[in-house]
Amino acid sequence: MTLNSLKTTPLTTIKRGPKRTSLDREAAWQLIDQSVICHVAQQVEGQVVVTPTCHWRDGEYLYWHGHRRARNLAAGQPVSINICALDGLVMARSAFNHSINYRSLTVFGTAEWIDDEQHKAQQLQRFVDKLSPGRWEQLRPMTAQELAATGVARVALDEVSFKCRDGGPNDDEADSDWPVWAGVVHGQHHWEPEQDALQASEHALPMIREGLMQGLSGRRPV
Amino acid sequence: MTLNSLKTTPLTTIKRGPKRTSLDREAAWQLIDQSVICHVAQQVEGQVVVTPTCHWRDGEYLYWHGHRRARNLAAGQPVSINICALDGLVMARSAFNHSINYRSLTVFGTAEWIDDEQHKAQQLQRFVDKLSPGRWEQLRPMTAQELAATGVARVALDEVSFKCRDGGPNDDEADSDWPVWAGVVHGQHHWEPEQDALQASEHALPMIREGLMQGLSGRRPV
Repeated sequence: MTLNSLKTTPLTTIKRGPKRTSLDREAAWQLIDQSVICHVAQQVEGQVVVTPTCHWRDGEYLYWHGHRRARNLAAGQPVSINICALDGLVMARSAFNHSINYRSLTVFGTAEWIDDEQHKAQQLQRFVDKLSPGRWEQLRPMTAQELAATGVARVALDEVSFKCRDGGPNDDEADSDWPVWAGVVHGQHHWEPEQDALQASEHALPMIREGLMQGLSGRRPV
Repeated sequence: MTLNSLKTTPLTTIKRGPKRTSLDREAAWQLIDQSVICHVAQQVEGQVVVTPTCHWRDGEYLYWHGHRRARNLAAGQPVSINICALDGLVMARSAFNHSINYRSLTVFGTAEWIDDEQHKAQQLQRFVDKLSPGRWEQLRPMTAQELAATGVARVALDEVSFKCRDGGPNDDEADSDWPVWAGVVHGQHHWEPEQDALQASEHALPMIREGLMQGLSGRRPV
């Protein structure tokens, strides 16, 4: 393990498909920074609940937000959070060898509630500017009431597992001449702005963070 | 409640943002059918774990698959499974009124392991043909060994909550003239096939299910 690699713990050791484990910390952080939605799982009154929400990162912490009383923000609770990007459908010559190209990151930790209003405001700015760089400064400033109504939680990016698949199909050699198309169907995405019809005047289009996606990334070579 | 609407139970009653609750069963099933990845949450040896995996639907059941011994397939376990599609970024005139357009479905239930090999094979065909209609029949047939190595689980689509947001920003009236671009930045996606370089001969391109996506859907009006 180096400073730039993820550490391995009993919880983050991948048991299924361990050869797809990645310790590439930079790629893991990039997945966090370029994706919008994460899935937060926790126990709520004895029931396992998984909730999608928006996330962002500040250094070694993963942040997410929601209504101040939202159940996925319960402080001091153990959480498991996953972010998954689907990069492509891997079409093999047999059903068994079909797969997907993906990047998947899971964090295990304890949710920490942010009480300090200034810390919260700083983090909400990071969140807005993550999606649309520089936007926060252009907006009508947040009121104390709005800030109080917004809940922000975080978990340390300490126990992180990261698993990826890339490249073409891994068919059995005996299947190589099987007469069916094989390869990767890459997911592509782009963003298309549509201005609020209520807005009469011209304004500059919002910036969107480069590479921002939900699940679908740019093309990668087979 | 009608035959075509989802039922409401204490577990599926949405507590945060209840006005975004949808009981539109057809739209809920369409989200399942047109998405690739779901997130399965459960307790594993006292630890909450969330795992992304591929899913499909057969009637009133949500199926998913993985390695026969994969921990997210543990039979008889309570699970919470979410499927979320990000449709757009809603850019308001204040940070507080920013939002996303999305469709989010959560199922609560007990995972059931499929032991019957014929049932399993039928379901794997449904899975392949969900992604690429008609592909199963073109593939090198599955062997008994491959079938035995593949785990399939399901949960009844009985307790389902479905929450959606659509449309433009809901700004405060006082903010309507604030000088910043407001509207929706729609997510768009498409698929791009790239043939396996090892494949010398010509083959018809694979069909991809119409509307198939991960998170990003077609454009919707503001």
